[in-house]
Amino acid sequence: MSLDKTAQKPHDRLAAVLTVEMEQVNALIRARMASEHAPRIPEVTAHLVEAGGKRIRPMLTLAAARMCGYSGDNHVKLAATVEFIHTATLLHDDVVDESARRRGRPTANLLWDNKSSVLVGDYLLARSFLLMVETGSLRVLEILSNASAVIAEGEVLQMTASRDLRTNEAIYLQVIRGKTAALFAAACEVGGVVAGASQDRIDALRDYGDALGISFQIVDDLLDYGGDALATGKDVGDDFRERKLTLPVIKAVARADEAERAFWSRVIERGDQREGDLEHALALIARHGTMEATRQEALIWAERAKAALAALPEGDIRDMLTDLADFVVARVR
Amino acid sequence: MSLDKTAQKPHDRLAAVLTVEMEQVNALIRARMASEHAPRIPEVTAHLVEAGGKRIRPMLTLAAARMCGYSGDNHVKLAATVEFIHTATLLHDDVVDESARRRGRPTANLLWDNKSSVLVGDYLLARSFLLMVETGSLRVLEILSNASAVIAEGEVLQMTASRDLRTNEAIYLQVIRGKTAALFAAACEVGGVVAGASQDRIDALRDYGDALGISFQIVDDLLDYGGDALATGKDVGDDFRERKLTLPVIKAVARADEAERAFWSRVIERGDQREGDLEHALALIARHGTMEATRQEALIWAERAKAALAALPEGDIRDMLTDLADFVVARVR
Repeated sequence: MSLDKTAQKPHDRLAAVLTVEMEQVNALIRARMASEHAPRIPEVTAHLVEAGGKRIRPMLTLAAARMCGYSGDNHVKLAATVEFIHTATLLHDDVVDESARRRGRPTANLLWDNKSSVLVGDYLLARSFLLMVETGSLRVLEILSNASAVIAEGEVLQMTASRDLRTNEAIYLQVIRGKTAALFAAACEVGGVVAGASQDRIDALRDYGDALGISFQIVDDLLDYGGDALATGKDVGDDFRERKLTLPVIKAVARADEAERAFWSRVIERGDQREGDLEHALALIARHGTMEATRQEALIWAERAKAALAALPEGDIRDMLTDLADFVVARVR
Repeated sequence: MSLDKTAQKPHDRLAAVLTVEMEQVNALIRARMASEHAPRIPEVTAHLVEAGGKRIRPMLTLAAARMCGYSGDNHVKLAATVEFIHTATLLHDDVVDESARRRGRPTANLLWDNKSSVLVGDYLLARSFLLMVETGSLRVLEILSNASAVIAEGEVLQMTASRDLRTNEAIYLQVIRGKTAALFAAACEVGGVVAGASQDRIDALRDYGDALGISFQIVDDLLDYGGDALATGKDVGDDFRERKLTLPVIKAVARADEAERAFWSRVIERGDQREGDLEHALALIARHGTMEATRQEALIWAERAKAALAALPEGDIRDMLTDLADFVVARVR
């Protein structure tokens, strides 16, 4: 690997290789989110679509298709589809989480309202299905419909699992596999499907996306207890305040003595949070070393992601996807 | 028409003819709304699915397919799909409208919360797309994805059009065509498509559903100013309190003198509603005869629905669909 390569972030290198197609994806997104009759729709989506997200999911679709030798243009439609589904999820998540900021900007439901967030999300989902129909592939429709169902299930499960100290690592894995990894996996998988890749390669792409998504979400949850707001667009302790159970806390609860357990029960289960509680939670997390233990889990999933790539054709794109898995975990420490 | 026939409501007669298939639809709905990982999902949906709705939309799909001579079983899947989309719309509408009751029961978001309503609605939509994929028909997927987009557009348009006295009859028609008629039309259309009917017949089915849906919604909006809560499950004046502009008010505003206009502006645009305002609104509606004028519009659309049926095969089912169009309007006066 040249010095020049190591200096650049892997998703920037992917974006450079895929510039032409990503521009087509962006043009398609702008064209398809328009609505003749309801001008509020592009107003709401522009806020999210132009917020400068890394477009990691559509890039995965393009990269997977390209790596499998695809030369048509249906992968552009699928990449736009994947971003629409992601954006709809963000809009609906805004209603749900009462989160105050996303990507460093006010969320759609503060600028607009819950109504707009729900309905515009619905509109984007419907448009994404129309785009899929245009590719003429029932298999793609099945994969992405299924991913949508799994995402919603994951979010519902997260809802019932939050505020409940019985939530263990297995439940946590199921939640993040749904809410995050399902779309990463489907984004990669449909890239292989549209390219007509062998089932082995399609499975490998799916496994890569699944493991990458899990690793990505574990790191995201880790940063919530130790990242800085500038880098993540989130405040430290958002999950704590929302009483979500993520890996650093689940592991700390598992290692808690009686007094610590009473603390977690008060702040997470009963939601009785006072000044200094976040600092105490951070101290307990530090005492039990659960930040590092969580980082180790993320590393394991990143290794699994890289291992899955072995079944795929060697080359620049595979190298970048390998580096991407490393980079996701390198965001911490 | 025999005396026996006239004694029964047309949707009950349709339900009788379609008993076996409707039972299959209900079984499929129960099976597909289950979720292994998120037991809250069937808890929320059972509330709506078992609330004793008339299942008019799935019945239209079955009736259309049967009328066009279909003998397979994909129409059962499509009927369940249509009901899932409808239920998802109700769930998302609950978040949106802050309406206190639906079908005479508390809405899902009072029993549960906004979170559940949004996410479970998303889950049902995703499941409905999986069901469509199973039919193997891209055309069906296109029709119902498009209907979903038009429904969301209609709801967004309703949101921007409410509280605005500039909302005229053309905008109102566009709103109800989206939020109600689009799914009626698609429900009928896919029944013809799955039966392999000729394009003429498919178009006629679509036109029937569109006109029936428009007529149905006009009557619904009319009942909001004059029905009784027991029959409709809604309180008189719900739309007034939510400052929605529906036909009886739009027509009254168009005929208003200066003082009346000031009244409408205060209660609808500024939302400054005081005791006695609903009664005054009802008096203005009565003074300008806009209940009857609205009923006349509903009648015109019912006639259009019946006229569309001319292109379809004669027989019992066609007769029942004709009677259904009459019955929808007969709900008033």
